[in-house]
Amino acid sequence: MRQVLPGHGASRGSALGRARVRLPHVLDVREERIPADTVDAELDRLHAAIDVVREEMRVLRHRLHGALAQEVGEFLDLHALLLDDPELLQGLDDLIRAGRYSADYALRLQRDRIANVFTGMDDAYLRSRIDDIDQVIGRIHAALHRRSTPVEGLAGDILVTDNIAPAELAQLQAQGVMAVVTAGGSALSHSAILARSLHLPLVVGAAQALLKVNDGDVLAVDGTSGLVVLEPNADDLRGHRARMRDQVRERRQLNRLRREPTRTTDGVDIKLWANAESRADVAEAHALGAAGVGLYRTEFLFLQRNELPDEEEQFRAYRDVVLGMTGRTVTIRTLDLGADKADRSGLVLEDEPNPALGLRGVRLSLARDALFRTQLRAIARASGYGPVRVLVPMVSSREEIVSVRRLLKRVLAQVRREGHEVADVIPLGAMIEVPAAAIALPGFVGAVDFLSIGTNDLIQYLLAADRNNEALGDIYTPLHPALVRLLHDIIRIAHRKGKPVAVCGEMAGDAQYAPLLLALGLSEFSLHPNTLLELRRAIRDCDLGALRARAPALLRAKDRKSIETWLQG
Amino acid sequence: MRQVLPGHGASRGSALGRARVRLPHVLDVREERIPADTVDAELDRLHAAIDVVREEMRVLRHRLHGALAQEVGEFLDLHALLLDDPELLQGLDDLIRAGRYSADYALRLQRDRIANVFTGMDDAYLRSRIDDIDQVIGRIHAALHRRSTPVEGLAGDILVTDNIAPAELAQLQAQGVMAVVTAGGSALSHSAILARSLHLPLVVGAAQALLKVNDGDVLAVDGTSGLVVLEPNADDLRGHRARMRDQVRERRQLNRLRREPTRTTDGVDIKLWANAESRADVAEAHALGAAGVGLYRTEFLFLQRNELPDEEEQFRAYRDVVLGMTGRTVTIRTLDLGADKADRSGLVLEDEPNPALGLRGVRLSLARDALFRTQLRAIARASGYGPVRVLVPMVSSREEIVSVRRLLKRVLAQVRREGHEVADVIPLGAMIEVPAAAIALPGFVGAVDFLSIGTNDLIQYLLAADRNNEALGDIYTPLHPALVRLLHDIIRIAHRKGKPVAVCGEMAGDAQYAPLLLALGLSEFSLHPNTLLELRRAIRDCDLGALRARAPALLRAKDRKSIETWLQG
Repeated sequence: MRQVLPGHGASRGSALGRARVRLPHVLDVREERIPADTVDAELDRLHAAIDVVREEMRVLRHRLHGALAQEVGEFLDLHALLLDDPELLQGLDDLIRAGRYSADYALRLQRDRIANVFTGMDDAYLRSRIDDIDQVIGRIHAALHRRSTPVEGLAGDILVTDNIAPAELAQLQAQGVMAVVTAGGSALSHSAILARSLHLPLVVGAAQALLKVNDGDVLAVDGTSGLVVLEPNADDLRGHRARMRDQVRERRQLNRLRREPTRTTDGVDIKLWANAESRADVAEAHALGAAGVGLYRTEFLFLQRNELPDEEEQFRAYRDVVLGMTGRTVTIRTLDLGADKADRSGLVLEDEPNPALGLRGVRLSLARDALFRTQLRAIARASGYGPVRVLVPMVSSREEIVSVRRLLKRVLAQVRREGHEVADVIPLGAMIEVPAAAIALPGFVGAVDFLSIGTNDLIQYLLAADRNNEALGDIYTPLHPALVRLLHDIIRIAHRKGKPVAVCGEMAGDAQYAPLLLALGLSEFSLHPNTLLELRRAIRDCDLGALRARAPALLRAKDRKSIETWLQG
Repeated sequence: MRQVLPGHGASRGSALGRARVRLPHVLDVREERIPADTVDAELDRLHAAIDVVREEMRVLRHRLHGALAQEVGEFLDLHALLLDDPELLQGLDDLIRAGRYSADYALRLQRDRIANVFTGMDDAYLRSRIDDIDQVIGRIHAALHRRSTPVEGLAGDILVTDNIAPAELAQLQAQGVMAVVTAGGSALSHSAILARSLHLPLVVGAAQALLKVNDGDVLAVDGTSGLVVLEPNADDLRGHRARMRDQVRERRQLNRLRREPTRTTDGVDIKLWANAESRADVAEAHALGAAGVGLYRTEFLFLQRNELPDEEEQFRAYRDVVLGMTGRTVTIRTLDLGADKADRSGLVLEDEPNPALGLRGVRLSLARDALFRTQLRAIARASGYGPVRVLVPMVSSREEIVSVRRLLKRVLAQVRREGHEVADVIPLGAMIEVPAAAIALPGFVGAVDFLSIGTNDLIQYLLAADRNNEALGDIYTPLHPALVRLLHDIIRIAHRKGKPVAVCGEMAGDAQYAPLLLALGLSEFSLHPNTLLELRRAIRDCDLGALRARAPALLRAKDRKSIETWLQG
């Protein structure tokens, strides 16, 4: 029977397909025997789960830092050892093969068997080791249930689950999943952001989905309205087909905008920069007619490796981007590493209880002088191949910018003396993402050549709300009067001094915010190429004069609701 | 020979005394026998170290939250179990008593003995348990060295060490330590703040101290200038005696101000509120003539316990403070618990990677409705005994204040209906500590009755700098142009709407900032009673008219240096 299951649209797009339900992990295990011909499949299932646990523990260990890492790390190593314990594994295999027990029940039996041995021991210390066994068994059991739906069977299906981790999404899309529906989650989560950039339809908060939907049910999912229809009727199917036609048409329309200017209806040109990291991003940015690269992050060169990249390696990476943009400007952001970003380079040693409020960005660069100098030298050398700008993250005071400029000047002179071809000038800009920098801007706007507003961090600090903390619900939002006022002030102050200013956070790439940002006077956006055409289209629908005239009303908004009302028209 | 060892003054006051050097813990253990008559002392030393480790592990466990707490917690429990293992302990005692080994060497021998047993085991899992033994032994060994200076011998001495933990300071003062000199550390650390409130002289960053000073050397320490003089000469001694005379005179002068008004030289009265938690604080606040309690924190009722305080318990605590202030207003701050504050109540479940940006203060209260209602009911009942105000922490939007007011109104009506005596009105105020609240203040100042600026958190978020992260050096500072501008705006907006506004962070209690705050228009300070007289004296030296005239220069300051220059006159 047809049923509508309301949720929140988290990533646009429609999908029609059969549901694959992944139930949350259940701990209760009853005695269960399996037929002889499924023994091999059951063994595979068990070992796949053990592999998952091994990987989870590797990832968990990787996420740990500092003093705690040592303590917890050794604990995890111990569990990893248990996972490889031949006695445990052989016992499980035997139970499944000889006893024809399900993997779940085998786990339970093996656990009890080991527990009996331990409980009989004299030594309280050894007796206590049963806890380790319990934890490891519990992890395997959880993994078994998370993977009870064979992952390879999802192509063409719609996954219905309680929640989804960002890491799973790319994998699911690669497997051909059409859409994802979650009972929990938030449209502001990392998963939602990732789903949007993957163009994978996602509906979150469809609370009834797990109760009503069964494996194989047909679902029509609309990632825009957030509606999920179970066993859709003729009307629903007609609606779905219409949406699909719209999507195709939209894609075609958007593609026609590849060679069009980003110009408002009243004829004002808006500059669109690309946030680009990979060669593919750079090529796409170029093809879409981006004004240049507005944000080239350099962290990836430093992450996930055991040694730091030397000057030559950095130089080559930067040079390739500069060459790829054939004369359009490339804005290279200096290292924005912090304890919040996993690294094995040993750069970030601190065990910071609040890494977002820690030794990040320019703070770390200024504290690690030699490292920073190497990066600036590599950038200086790349500037011989095309126009380059340097963007400094996490600036909170005038003093920091002054220090960086002094260093950059010295490095440029030195690199030039060594005979390298170097640009005459490398403009220096500051990320405005620390509230203090935004508020104290009048005092240091004169010290920079350009500005880039990092709304992700700026909102996070302004609202004291970690954007990845889902418990905070909608406390993290760009629709806050404080952000509106602050953006207005930053843009006004920058323009008054003739300094270019762009927004480069998620907000810039989301077309729904374009009218708000234009009303506040923004004329440069920097965003990932995958939403560039949508933003261009949105801007081409805007009347800048009319929006500017409505700015005072926007600045008077007292709460989120008034800003939403303003956006609606 | 006389030598000057420069450091940074972190807590004022002078001291002259013999040095007690505590070297950082060294791991190397050589065979060492002890004389028969020191065996008992050595056993004591060992058991004191074991007690220290037990306590450390209790504290560490207490600091853990969420999912990690479970995993690490069980690991810690295991270590605690090992610490109580009779075989391990007996073995150590025997080695010291019968073998006359030093505790250090006994640890090494016992470790090797256990390791031999484990290494011989067949099972890889059991073999791996030697790691646990190693960690526990390592901890005891570290604790032995941290305590190698007998703690009871420090009375009258000056402790010289690499670093000092906040928890140690109160203990050291109770033991009669005159002053502390550290080679590392920062004047902005928690330890420094605590030292100031204990009036214990502290010099930090005296890098050469550990290299030059030996046990028994005479030191003259000046916690104001940060100078440490080794083997002081006649001039130094004269200087020290003069400083001591000044201190005594100052204390006497300050005490004379107990009954004086807090009035500027041009006759303007400034309101001083007390931040008070304990009965002693309340009594002191009353005796010093505080206008009332400006900040009564309620977290202590919730911390360090396994069950939540019920309405009756809360009511009695609040009522006692109200009665203690005999008619002067008591400002009760609603629960400001968050994952950053240790609790065992199960209130805060999240494993937050950035607790300072998490579910704290009013966010937690609004998310735990029943809990919040209970607190408001207790406050309502206490209001029958004297004037009470309610102060809400971590407000970031108008919506939150509107929700709290609605709830408070409902609770008041209900408590009144039940026949309790309740104040006609309970003024409702917001802490301004989230930057968004400060910036968006014009939109919601009308929704509150008063404001209290929490500079500690406000600075932390404004500068994206965790105040407890020592790696950040002086990035966390009240002397930032952004803070100056923001304070000025908050005070101006509040006063324009006729709403009282106080500052209640550390900044308010530090007399050096009084001219700055007065210049910005502040007329209410809330601070711990222990610096109230100093602040009163500083304010009595200020000419408010002259300071207000200098405000524009302050607001033009571009960097820290210019603000420091402004403060100097």
